[in-house]
Order: sequence, then structure tokens, then C-alpha cells
Amino acid sequence: MTATVDLNADMGESYGPWVMGNDAEILKIVTSANIACGFHAGDPDVMAKTMQMAHDSGTGIGAHPGFADLQGFGRRRMSLPKDTLANMVAYQVAAATGMATALGTRVRHLKLHGALANMAAEDAAMARTCYEAALRVAPDLIVMVLAGTEQEEAAKAMGAPRANEIFADRAYNDDATLVDRSLPHAMVHDPVIAGARMARMVARGAIETHSGQWLPVPIDTICLHGDGPEALAIARAVKAHLAEAGVALKPFEGR
Amino acid sequence: MTATVDLNADMGESYGPWVMGNDAEILKIVTSANIACGFHAGDPDVMAKTMQMAHDSGTGIGAHPGFADLQGFGRRRMSLPKDTLANMVAYQVAAATGMATALGTRVRHLKLHGALANMAAEDAAMARTCYEAALRVAPDLIVMVLAGTEQEEAAKAMGAPRANEIFADRAYNDDATLVDRSLPHAMVHDPVIAGARMARMVARGAIETHSGQWLPVPIDTICLHGDGPEALAIARAVKAHLAEAGVALKPFEGR
Amino acid sequence: MTATVDLNADMGESYGPWVMGNDAEILKIVTSANIACGFHAGDPDVMAKTMQMAHDSGTGIGAHPGFADLQGFGRRRMSLPKDTLANMVAYQVAAATGMATALGTRVRHLKLHGALANMAAEDAAMARTCYEAALRVAPDLIVMVLAGTEQEEAAKAMGAPRANEIFADRAYNDDATLVDRSLPHAMVHDPVIAGARMARMVARGAIETHSGQWLPVPIDTICLHGDGPEALAIARAVKAHLAEAGVALKPFEGR
Amino acid sequence: MTATVDLNADMGESYGPWVMGNDAEILKIVTSANIACGFHAGDPDVMAKTMQMAHDSGTGIGAHPGFADLQGFGRRRMSLPKDTLANMVAYQVAAATGMATALGTRVRHLKLHGALANMAAEDAAMARTCYEAALRVAPDLIVMVLAGTEQEEAAKAMGAPRANEIFADRAYNDDATLVDRSLPHAMVHDPVIAGARMARMVARGAIETHSGQWLPVPIDTICLHGDGPEALAIARAVKAHLAEAGVALKPFEGR
Repeated sequence: MTATVDLNADMGESYGPWVMGNDAEILKIVTSANIACGFHAGDPDVMAKTMQMAHDSGTGIGAHPGFADLQGFGRRRMSLPKDTLANMVAYQVAAATGMATALGTRVRHLKLHGALANMAAEDAAMARTCYEAALRVAPDLIVMVLAGTEQEEAAKAMGAPRANEIFADRAYNDDATLVDRSLPHAMVHDPVIAGARMARMVARGAIETHSGQWLPVPIDTICLHGDGPEALAIARAVKAHLAEAGVALKPFEGR
Repeated sequence: MTATVDLNADMGESYGPWVMGNDAEILKIVTSANIACGFHAGDPDVMAKTMQMAHDSGTGIGAHPGFADLQGFGRRRMSLPKDTLANMVAYQVAAATGMATALGTRVRHLKLHGALANMAAEDAAMARTCYEAALRVAPDLIVMVLAGTEQEEAAKAMGAPRANEIFADRAYNDDATLVDRSLPHAMVHDPVIAGARMARMVARGAIETHSGQWLPVPIDTICLHGDGPEALAIARAVKAHLAEAGVALKPFEGR
Repeated sequence: MTATVDLNADMGESYGPWVMGNDAEILKIVTSANIACGFHAGDPDVMAKTMQMAHDSGTGIGAHPGFADLQGFGRRRMSLPKDTLANMVAYQVAAATGMATALGTRVRHLKLHGALANMAAEDAAMARTCYEAALRVAPDLIVMVLAGTEQEEAAKAMGAPRANEIFADRAYNDDATLVDRSLPHAMVHDPVIAGARMARMVARGAIETHSGQWLPVPIDTICLHGDGPEALAIARAVKAHLAEAGVALKPFEGR
Repeated sequence: MTATVDLNADMGESYGPWVMGNDAEILKIVTSANIACGFHAGDPDVMAKTMQMAHDSGTGIGAHPGFADLQGFGRRRMSLPKDTLANMVAYQVAAATGMATALGTRVRHLKLHGALANMAAEDAAMARTCYEAALRVAPDLIVMVLAGTEQEEAAKAMGAPRANEIFADRAYNDDATLVDRSLPHAMVHDPVIAGARMARMVARGAIETHSGQWLPVPIDTICLHGDGPEALAIARAVKAHLAEAGVALKPFEGR
């Protein structure tokens, strides 16, 4: 049996006249595209264009909702009532789903963005609120979860089809959480190291922590970034190392 | 054969802590609810709540997109490129459609709002851009058009199912356009006059102009308003006069 | 020596077509008006109109900045970096100050709004960041602080002229914090009780807690509300009871 | 007497995480910086940072207000009532003025942005509304006007100190209007041609039209752009050609 994995990246994060990322290049690498829905980034023009590009390249399209905070790019924590949170996610997933229909394609997965994702990774009830809201809009969605977090717990408890995600460029603590960005070893900058590390993790079916421990966890998709030369180099290196290790790239199907 | 007509009103125009209109009362009267989609009014919470109320009362739900101009309530004209216009409408209709799905109901019609509607009433190409964008998202939508305007022409040319709309509280010029709001006789303030006038127009299948002429035009729906005591009184009077004249209220089905 | 006190209310909280509060009525009662600056409520038209009304009635004008969260009315907590917080406050205070100049009047005080105020009441460093940012824009501002909270500590530590505020319609815990809104006795609904209580507190120079204790604290201003019949009745009752108790209404001058 | 001229560029047009232009490089060239005020671009952080950079480099700071249309970057025409227009400009100029005060510097000029500027160039009454609103906030502002347009007429009629502006990279019609962008010869792309042309115009005190005519008009400042390698090359070439022609760079003082 050949090991397979999916590669994903956030995209459609431009807004009006402002360009972010290099969606055309990263689409040559990934099998899943998480497309911003207009609240933290992306506007209807950007969404339509990005969905079309993802569809044309055969990449799986994901709705990528975030907080309504353009200046903060959805990276600032906000305290929302449960119903408001649900409606906020539903609205964005609905917008993405309907726009995909208009383009003759479909949204196949959900990934939460930024502070919304971080908060949901710590709080299964909040994650569940978001996932249930999204699934009421589009019952066939596969939920992309941060492996080993409360996001995964929430999806499991719901029995929702899910895809477990790890990061190519972030170091892990021994409890599967990410090393805080303020620490010097939080980020993996070297493409070769990142690539080899991802191949090892996928082959072994476990997260390799910064201290050298292995945490067994199903791995379905690897998060890459496409903005900046370093990120693109890491993305390419991950793809190359996976190929060398005999891991096939394959869109996830939900477990 | 009994004459029938639909009654419609804009609703879901509150935003955050700000309340507009009296949706609960007007829902007792109308058969169609045009629900704001978050760009000129309405937020995801307001949309969800209003759709649920409309669904519970058996009222037909419409997507009511407008310009992204909250301060101006979508009443200020904006010059948008054609593609931007199409994506702006698609996004809002998509959000409405998916949120309706989440609530176990559906969006059955489209009505443009404010300055977007006024511009489309003067420009069939612009109207068509909007309608086509909406129908790509939700092909079964019935398009509500201002009777006798370029909106109607656009829907006819497309062969899209449509519902012709007249206003209960606005006077008409002899070319079927509305009397400019700056003129003293633009508005009909008296509920009895408004009610009797609507019953006459529906019975005769024609618009009665301010000068007393009759312009034959199919009439499928009458636009009412629910904000303020006068508007609600007119709405109730129209309903009563129609009943008295033997006109049955019936949701439109598209011609 | 006659006891004096200032009465303040938030106003200018309408937005575009949406009206909030009854600014004309409340301006007949208060001596200080805290005017929203466009981020959580208020738009440039509303600000200009409200400032003009406050100026015409001889009411002291305050800048009332909040989080950039219109849907949440600035009541949802947001985590902002320190510099972003400072610039956010500076921008709003600057807008208010310059618009007051344009109207031939001036901004004389600062009051933080909603979640921003609540967070600053718990965190003196955050309060200080906001106050320093505001004072860099307008060095003569008097800072209105929630009496007995970290807001007061911050203003004291800075040596900034301040005005201590208590609430007419909220019950206090024994540590001078407000009783949580989820508890049944959090709010004072009865105008007579509210009025008598305020007169007692001002006369004694102390906060009366829900348990009946007295916390000595300078009291410079009482916060009233103007939206809804109950709030207006409380505002009027407070004014009447103060008059009866021989407390003169007088704009604060900063201590 | 030595001929002198000012060089200006729009800046501070980044927003949140999105970067636009190369403000650091263009600040080495220009003598005036037109800084976005948060409605069409720029947020409080970007404004503060850009003002500080302009101040540190000794560049004259301008308030650069635009329509409240982030997605459209203020380039889409909007129809606003006169009072709304005035308050919109006043608010933005006030924000800029107060933030400059906080940084220990000052705003010395006003330049309208995008569609607001284009509409004001065609409509002296609209230009005057904007200029009067700005001057009520900051009476010492110099108004930068598009030379030969209704903007210039409005400033003249008001007796407001003004600085006449021409474009380095745009071709002119024989009536001093800009050649429409849809025409092939609208833009000047060659740095050498642009530089030589600007030197000629300043030396002669006249606009050279595309057909070769000369329209005498005072020239106080030249508009450059800093985004993209071509724009920066043109900016540098203009500066070099002016130096070669013996034209000194000097901040304008208002005529």
C-alpha cells in the first residue's frame, strides 16, 4: 500500500487592489485550496477568480471563513456569542458554496482561518459550533482539522468526515500543539529540513516534536504557504521530498 | 377567474444593535419577503432570524442584494465594472441561498435594492448582468422586476421567470416611471387612497398614472413598507381593499 | 460648600439610516455628552450633527472611541497589539477633535466605549495606552474613568486630569466592580430607587454596594442612558433627586 | 531667478497586512507626501507609520481623503449628498491633522483622491464643498489642485492658497484634461521621455499637450508614483532631468 497525502494552502487572500500571495504558483503544487470568504480577506471578485483558477487546475476547493476583521486579517481574537459565531460561519460558507455553484464547481472542504482556528483548536465546543453551522449549509463538506487539537476532537465527536492537518513550517511541542511563534525555534525556515521532516512524518504516521518524540496521529494533509520566496521554496521542497519517499499526492477524501 | 396578487416588503434591514422596520407585523400581511444580504443592511444574525420568521409564516423568501454601502443604506449610486457587479450580486445571493438551506428553507426570488435597483431600472444591460449572476447561483429564482422598466425588459429578453411589481405608496408618471421624490405628489400618504388605488390597478391589470391615464401591464406583486405607523397602515389598507375587491392574495409563481 | 456633580450620557450612536437613542431629550438633562467616533457607531454625519447639538445646548463634548466593530457595537472583546490600540484611539480622538474645531467648538473629555472600556477597567497598562494616545492628540483632555477600577489607577499614575464616574442603573459589588449583567440584581430599573441612590452616593462621596457597604471614592459624574422610556425616566429621576438633595449639576473640571 | 518645483506622491496606501507601493524609496525623491486617511486605503497604524517616515525625511505631509470604498480603492464614483461629502472630508482631514499633532508634526496640504478627485475636477461646486470642509478643520492647509481643472477654479474662487499639479506619466488633451486611460497614448511609460517632458513644462510654465500645443499654467508640483519598477524609474528620471535643467526641488508654499 502506497502512503498518500494531500497538500493544502490558503489562497484568495488578496483584497481590492491589494495582492497577497502567489496563488498561480502555489496552485501548481497543492491539491487543496482554502479560499478566503470576504470577511478577513478576499472580496467577491477575488473569490470568483481564485475559485476559477483552483477549479481549472483540478485543486479541491475549500471555504476558509474567518473573523470579520479586515485590518487584522482575522488574526485578532474576538469574543462572539455562539449564535453569532454560527451565523458568521454559515454566511461565509454559503457565499463560497453558491459562488462555486455559479462557476460550475463545488466546495469540498472547510478550514477555519487565523484566530478563529486558533480559538477552535483550544475549545471543542467552539469548533463544533463552527463545523455544525458549515455542515448545515453544505452537508457534504469534509472538515479540515489541526491534528491532535480540540478541532479534531470536535469533528470526531460529531462523526463528521475530516482531514487531519499538520504544518510544514512549524515546530511542535510534545503535546501536539505548535511551538509559540515568539520562541526562536518556532518556525522551520530551511526547505530541505522541512521537506525531509514532512516525508518522515507522513511515512511514519506521526508528528515529530521539537524534542524528538513521535506522536502517532493520522496525517491527511500538509499546510504549505505561497507568499514569499522562502515559503514557495519550502512548498516545492516538501513536494519533492514526498515524491522521493514514494508518498503519492492525493486529495483527501475524509476519514 | 379570480384575480390574484402577491404583496411584498423589504425586511431584515436591521444591523447589529440597530433595529429597522417592524418585520413581525409586516410578515402578517405580505406573501413575499425581500431579505437584505449584509452589504447595505442585514448581518448574518439578522438574516438568519428574518429568514426563519419568514419561513415560519409561510412567506416566500427573496434575496435582496444591494451596494456595499452600509452608511448610505445602498441608496447611493456607485459605478462598478460589470464583473464586479456580477460577483457582488452572486456573493449576496449565494450567502442568502446557503443560509436558507441551513434553515431548511429556500430562496425563491430576487429583488434588487436601492440605487442598484434604480440604476438597473434605467439600464437593461446592467439589470441583465445582475440577473444572470443571480441565476448562475440559483437557477430557479424568480426575478422581481419594476413593471414597465428596463428591469422588465432585461428579464423578458433573458426569458427568465419574472414577477412584475408596482408600488403602493408611489405616484406614477405617464411613462410608467415613478414621480420624482422631490415633487409634492410623489408619495401616497393616505391608506384609503392607496388601498383603493391598488385594488383598481390589480382589477384592471394596468398602472394608473398621476394624470389619470391607464398603462396596461401585468401586475404580479405590490411593494409595501413596514417601517413607521403610516407605512403599516397603508399595508393593512391595501390588503383590506384587495379582499373587498375580491382579489385573492397569492404568492407569485413567475410569468 | 455645595456638593456638585456632572451627568453624562453616550450619544451620537446612530449610524447611516439607523437611529439609536434619543439625543435631543437626553441633552436636556446631561452636562457631558460622550460622542461615538465612527468605529463602533456614529458616522461623520451623525458626529457633526451630534456635536452641533451638544455645543448648542452647552453640554461638554467627549470623544468616545471604541473597537472597529460596527456589528458588535464595540461590545465584543478584541485582542489588539499595543501600538494598534494606541493608533486606533488616536485616530478616533483626532477625528472628533478636528470635527469639533470645524464646528467652532472643542472636545473636552475622553471616555472609552464598551469592551474597550471594560478591558481597560481590568488592565491599567491597557488603559494607560489608550489615555496616552488620546492625550498626545489633545493634551487638554480630561479622562473620564470608572471610579475604583484600573482605569482610575492608570489616570492617577499618569497624573492626567480625570473625572470619576459611577452608573445610575447598575448595582455594585463590594470591590467596586459592577454586578455581572447575568445576575438578577445587576440592573436598577426603578427611577425612584435609582434617583435616591445617586443622591445618597454623591452626598456621601462613596459607592453604595448591593450588600449595603459604602466605598469612599470621589464621584465626579454619573452615567445615564437615553434610549428607551425606562432609561429616560431614570435620567430624569436622577436629576430631580439630586436637585432635591441640594446637589448642583456642574460640568466636571478634572481632578 | 531659479525655477523651482515640488514633487509629490500618494503614499500610506497599505492596509492591514497588505502592502502597496514603496514609500521608503519614493520618500527619497519627493518633497510632498499625500497620505491616505483610512477610508479608501491606510489604517491608523499605516497612517502613523507613514506620517512618521515623511516627517523624519522632511517631506511635507498632506491629507489625502477619498471615498469610503476599500474594495474599490476610492476609484469608483459615488453620489453623495453635499453635507455627507463635507463631513466625509472633514472627518478624514481631522483624523490626519490630529494624528500629525500626536507625532509632533503637522499636515500642510490637502489632495483629494481617486474618483473624488476626478469628480471634483469636473465640478467646481463639489471641489469647493470638499475644500471648505477641510479648511474648517485646518485653516492653514494649502490645497493641491489639478492644474487647469475645476479644482483650480474652486480654490481660486475661494481665495484659498493652492498648489497647481501636473502628472509625470499622463498625456494631456488640448483642453488640459488628461487623455482617457483607455486610449493607447494615455500613459507615458519611458522614464527619459517623462523626465525631459517635465523639465520642459516647468521651465516654460505650461502644459505640453499630446498634440504639441502649450497651455500656459502655473506649475507648482509634479505627481509621481512609487509602486512598481517603472513608476520608480520615472520618478528618479524626473528628478534627474529637473536637476539637469537647473530646476530646484522645493516644497510648494501655496499661491
